Parts: sequence; structure tokens; C-alpha cells
Amino acid sequence: MSLNETHDPALRSWVASANVAGTDFPLQNLPFAVFRRRGAGEAWRGGVAIGDQVLDLAAVVASGILDGEAATAAQAGAQEKLNALMAMGPAAWSALRLALSRALREGAAEQDALQACLVPQAEAEYDVPARIGDYTDFYTSVHHATNIGRLFRPDNPLLPNYKWVPIGYHGRASSIGISGQSFRRPLGQTLPPGATQPAFGPCKRLDIELELGIFVGPGNAQGEPVPIAEAEDHVFGICLFNDWSARDIQAWEYQPLGPFLSKSFASTISPWVVTLEALAPYRVPFERPEGDPQPLPYLDSEANRREGALDIQLQVDLLTPRLRESGAAAATICRTSYRHSYWTVAQMVAHHTVNGCNLQPGDLFGSGTLSGPTLDQAGALIELTAGGKQPLQLANGETRTFLEDGDSVVIRGWCEKPGAARIGFGECAGTVLPAVAAGA
Amino acid sequence: MSLNETHDPALRSWVASANVAGTDFPLQNLPFAVFRRRGAGEAWRGGVAIGDQVLDLAAVVASGILDGEAATAAQAGAQEKLNALMAMGPAAWSALRLALSRALREGAAEQDALQACLVPQAEAEYDVPARIGDYTDFYTSVHHATNIGRLFRPDNPLLPNYKWVPIGYHGRASSIGISGQSFRRPLGQTLPPGATQPAFGPCKRLDIELELGIFVGPGNAQGEPVPIAEAEDHVFGICLFNDWSARDIQAWEYQPLGPFLSKSFASTISPWVVTLEALAPYRVPFERPEGDPQPLPYLDSEANRREGALDIQLQVDLLTPRLRESGAAAATICRTSYRHSYWTVAQMVAHHTVNGCNLQPGDLFGSGTLSGPTLDQAGALIELTAGGKQPLQLANGETRTFLEDGDSVVIRGWCEKPGAARIGFGECAGTVLPAVAAGA
Repeated sequence: MSLNETHDPALRSWVASANVAGTDFPLQNLPFAVFRRRGAGEAWRGGVAIGDQVLDLAAVVASGILDGEAATAAQAGAQEKLNALMAMGPAAWSALRLALSRALREGAAEQDALQACLVPQAEAEYDVPARIGDYTDFYTSVHHATNIGRLFRPDNPLLPNYKWVPIGYHGRASSIGISGQSFRRPLGQTLPPGATQPAFGPCKRLDIELELGIFVGPGNAQGEPVPIAEAEDHVFGICLFNDWSARDIQAWEYQPLGPFLSKSFASTISPWVVTLEALAPYRVPFERPEGDPQPLPYLDSEANRREGALDIQLQVDLLTPRLRESGAAAATICRTSYRHSYWTVAQMVAHHTVNGCNLQPGDLFGSGTLSGPTLDQAGALIELTAGGKQPLQLANGETRTFLEDGDSVVIRGWCEKPGAARIGFGECAGTVLPAVAAGA
Repeated sequence: MSLNETHDPALRSWVASANVAGTDFPLQNLPFAVFRRRGAGEAWRGGVAIGDQVLDLAAVVASGILDGEAATAAQAGAQEKLNALMAMGPAAWSALRLALSRALREGAAEQDALQACLVPQAEAEYDVPARIGDYTDFYTSVHHATNIGRLFRPDNPLLPNYKWVPIGYHGRASSIGISGQSFRRPLGQTLPPGATQPAFGPCKRLDIELELGIFVGPGNAQGEPVPIAEAEDHVFGICLFNDWSARDIQAWEYQPLGPFLSKSFASTISPWVVTLEALAPYRVPFERPEGDPQPLPYLDSEANRREGALDIQLQVDLLTPRLRESGAAAATICRTSYRHSYWTVAQMVAHHTVNGCNLQPGDLFGSGTLSGPTLDQAGALIELTAGGKQPLQLANGETRTFLEDGDSVVIRGWCEKPGAARIGFGECAGTVLPAVAAGA
């Protein structure tokens, strides 16, 4: 994907907050969300982030400043979910982003008309941006697969299929919520250490999974695989994703058919979906370590090798009730990058459809936990604490192995480098509530 | 669930074909589907089977013969998907079935009005009856789990969690199609016997899975488990289900996160959804074999023990291209009953929600392959042929291990016993097409 005028780092917006160093949402980003003013009884509709504002796409459509493909795309994006916009494809998304980029630039003739279409992010609330038909979770970090494989299967950490198959499994779509979500600690069956019969009660090993979420754009017909060369045309964009996991429930239930109730109680996504176009300056080569097998032909392309990976910086912060009450900052427990992924977004699409499976607009992929090469780059507490054996030490003297009631976790993501605008993802936050009284 | 007047086996309908011995759709059944006249450009809408006819719910609503809760339920059922009807709950479904049962009886005053609402099934086509938000496949046959476990893990056929956990996993909703579906043989990675590197190409071990599909009625809020005593109030009804499976792809991909592309290329459901109310005469006790653990309290209730299981007869027929061309009958390759299931429908609901996972109207559960206690009652070719080692011998001299291109598989289900009306499910048919040319 080549760069175009929307990527020019010198561009400035008449929305002053979009020009502030360190903003997630400069003029070069323009990510999409579904929003409304909090507490105002408004309808949900699509919006675009610019600085500390949301550009209301329904209001933009009503303003009449857009025409042609951009206007059609904005109409699709003004609905209560973004599925129709996602279904339109890269040319439409690109036309809309270009028109908005031009209209939001310093000196644009549209400034007066668009000023009235801005809603402060401080007054906004967000919804899950699409009707997610199917959610698929991948397992694209070889470091996570090795770390967690060692804990679940000490003799056999990385299975023989890992370097050939972009492993994925179907997940639960209904319980995916938007950043800000609070959820009850799940109840379930676990096998206590040394026991021969399971116990029932609240999860004792509640964990995070630092992931990216990938929204599908145009789908494919059942029976018609998407070639890897066309795979990215089926990707609308990327958000942050926390796939909360109950490790003790998972360990007891997951054989032979995979994780089920250990994951389906809640997953949290960030509201803003950043397009692949906005991320183009942060493409990096996709490289296999020396000696690893090359991908099979259906998972391989010159473009994928040249620029299939993305250098997205990721950070996980933990805010305990004590930190919150004392007004202290959250503790950063992980920093890593998506560039370490063993499989690319294009490979996920090509693999998912190679059997004829039909993707639909608004389907969601999870990247799988994005642990980096060193243990402090691990995206889950089970890795960061060596299976709960080495508690994290927080600056205020607290320790954590797994999550406690009242803990909040915030994932942040951004791209940054000299000569390109910073592209941010905002945040993905969620909070653990106590379990319901166990009925059994 | 107690019997009521709709179950009276002496009831006869003014639709003569509903009174014929052996019909799947007597007056006591009244299952729901989504249908339209084939090739007539009509809208999809809900219908109810009676004999060899479909009672068009949109036409029934327009006729004005219903009032009160039955009329409201019929309106919900007249939409292009049944989700709204499913969301209404057992009292509404029961009111509608009672009103239709009375109006379709011999001598009913409504005969003239309803006569115009009938469409011959011979002229109808069907659609998937609900927008399936999430599809979950269970694994409720201990015989299947043992048979297939022996093939995939000879040392360890039945895992220690099986008798405690109603094992399930998330499946792919987008590729579920209606009876009559044809689908391409999937492409994928497999590990040939003795090889150290995978091969890519068409599946060589394409299989069926004889299952029942269970449609969720009213959902539950996230974080609020459904107690087993209320579980069946969340079940709209049951249909036939064939979860086509690519065994060679499955064997290579399924560790550690479960089946993925080996299942997601196609699954087929029957059009007619039979309500739990219609099945009430066929309830049987749910019994654990001597020495097996009793279910944990959240999976146990007096009602579930007394009548939690259902005696639904099941049959799988195979029609090869040679059989089809010669005009010969399909070969029956399996007969079994759902009564052998190790976990009940109520237990599936209670387990699925115990962690707070929210079910939604129109969600689908698969029962998992319903193999009975003996090998000829196995619901998958991999079991019937001992992993492909003992081919099935068909009457025309053909043999089969796994499915060949052009093969059709038809699942049928029914309940029958003295003193009760026969309750049938119709059929669930699908056909294998050749793979697309492998691109790799």
C-alpha cells in the first residue's frame, strides 16, 4: 500500500487539538467509531476522531459538503453500526478519508460547515462499532504460544503445526463489549491442584490478553477463498482488544475442543478503528527467523514479505483499587510491538477463507495475545508471573499474580517514528466486578 | 413440562395429509420454518408445517383469525427471520400453537379462512430460520467422544473432564446453510501419514456429523447465569444438523485451540424447528451409568433427572452418484437415538451461561455427534469405518470410507411410540461438490 497525500506529516488541521504533539488523532489518522453524546438520548451513529473531537458523520452528511463516493461512504458510516461502510471496500474508505482530510485542513473552505459537526470526545460515549457476525481469535505470537504452551504442556510447548498453520479458533461474539466495560468475575469448574474431582466457584486466575482486533470489510462468497494478494482489501481496520481469560477454568475445560467458558464471559474492544491506509507508514517487512519454514504458497506473497507486518506499539496498564483511591498512576505491566507477530493480517484472511469459509463485513479477528520476545513484553499475566509463581511488584508495594476484584486494565496502542505523523488507537479499558453469589 | 390438549393423539386436522400415518407433521407437531414459494420472487416469512402444507404465518396474520398473545406471536413469526418469535418465550409459543391447533382441527370454524393460507411444501423453499448470532457446538455423546478420542488419542480416549463438563466450543455461524445446500470440498493443510511437513490440497477425509441443532429462545443478560430450573424456558426448539467435518485438516490443525477450518466451510440445518412443547410426550429420564459421577449442583435438577432426555430417533442416509443415477434408494448408514446423550439440553444452557456468557434469541447449539452405544449407531464416518480402515459396503457393491464428490447425505429424525402422535423433523440434506482448483 503506497502513501498518498493523507499521510503528509506536515498537514495541520483547523481543529487545534489535532496538531498537539502526542495526540492519538491527528489529521493523518481519522479512525472510525460509533458514538453518541452521553446521556442525551441521541441515536448511535458513526464518527471520525480528530484531535479531542468526534466528527459526527450523520451531521457531515446533513451538511452537504461531501459528494460522489465520499458522500456515499459517509452515508453508510452514519448508521448505528459501521457494517455498511465496512462492506464498501478500500476505494470508498479512501475517498471518504481524503475528502475529510481536505475539509479538516487549515484553511479549508468547509471549516464553518464542519465546525457544527464536532462533538467533544469528553462528552461522547461509544458502542461496539459493528454487528459482529462471527469473531475468530488467532494465536499469532510465537512467543505467547511458547510461553503459555510451556505452562499448559511443559513437555511440548510449541506444537508441530505452529510454524505452518496460523492457528485460530472461533470465539464468542455476544459478550464483546466496548471500552469502559465492567464485567463480573466468572463462575466455573476448575480442578484444584492435586484434586481428582472439580470444584465450582469464582475464577481464581483471571487474566488479560493483550490483542489487536481486526475488522473485516467486504466479505467473500462461501466456497471462494480469498487469495493472499487480495486479502488486505477485505480488512477495514484495527482496534485494541482485551480477551479476558479465566486460566483455571481454561486449564480444566480446554481439552479436546479448545477454550470455551474461560473466554466467553467478556472481551473488550476499543471504540476507534484505525484503517490500514492510516497505518501504511508503519509497515515493516514480515520476516521468518533463520531456519524456520517459509509459509506455504497460499500464505506467501512478495508484498506480504516486503511490508506485511505493522509496527504498532502496545502498552498495558493496571489500576488497582488502592492505586485508584490514592490518586496514583496506573502501573505499566507490559510494553511490546505488533511487529513481532509470527503471522500477518493478510495471512489470517487467506488462511481463514482457504477452506471456503465466508467472511462477512463486521466480522472480527483477534490477533491472539501479542507477547514479544522477552518475558517483560508478555501480553498476559500468566506469562508475566510465570504461571502465578512470580508476583508482579507494583510501585506502591502491592503485588499481583492474577486480577483482583476492582482492578482495571487499560491497553493503549500507537505508531510513532521520525518523518511520519503519530497514529494512535486511543484506549481499551475494562474493570473486574465481584462474582455473583455462587448458586452451586 | 406437562402435556396439554395440543398433544391429544386423537386430534385430526381438516388438512387431510396431516392425518396420514407416518407423516412428520401431524396436528400435534406444528414446527416453525422460514419459507417462500420457489421462484415466485416472494419475501421470506415464517410458516408452520401441517401435513404436506406450509401454513403461511404472514397470511394467517392478515386473515385476522387470531387475537391476543397468539396474534402477537404470529406477527413476530411472520417476519423474514424467527428471532423475534424466539425472543418471546414459551407462553407466547404455546399460545400460538394452541390457537393454530384449534383452528386446524376438523370442524374448525377457521377452515375457510385458513385454507387460503396454505402453501404446498412441494412448492416451497426454505431459509435458515434465524439470524444466528453465535453458534456453539457441544460434544454430548460419550460414545462419540470415546470413539473419536481413541482415533485422535489412542492412549487417552476419554479425557478426565468429560464426565464433569458438558464440553463445547464456539463454531462458525456464517457458513450454516439450509437443507439442500451444496458445498465445495474444502482445501487445506494436512499432515500426510509419515510426513514431517504438511501438504496442501483438497480434503481427503470428508465426513458427516449427525447432530441436533437447538435454537435459543429468550436470551440472558451478560453476567447473569441461567439456573438449570429455568434453562428450558430459553430453548425455542430443535432441528436436524449436519456438521460436515474435514478429518485430515482437523487432525493437523486442532491442537491446542480446537477445530477451526475443518468445520467452518459448511454446516447444514433442517428447515423445521420442532418446539420442546411438541416433544413433551417423548421425554425420558436422564440417567448416568452406574459408577459415573453425578452432575455438579448447577447441572442437576429433579426435573432434569426425571425427564431431561428426549427419545428422538435419528437416521443417516447416503446417496452416491451411482445410486442416484440408477434410481436406487439411498443407503442407510446409521440409526440411533438422542436418548443416549450424556448431557441434556437444559444442562447445555446452564453450563453455557454459568460464567455469565449472554445467550441471544436465535443462537444455535449443536448437540455434537450423536453416536449411540454400538458402533453401527455412530454418527460419523470416521467412527463407522474405524478411522477409514473398514470401508462401508453399500448394497450396489460400492464402498465408502469418507465422502466422495457428488455424495449426498440426508439426516432424518422423528419420535414415535404407542399412545402419542408421531413428531417428525423432516430432513436435512446436503451434497458435496468438487474442490475449487487448488491455488497453491
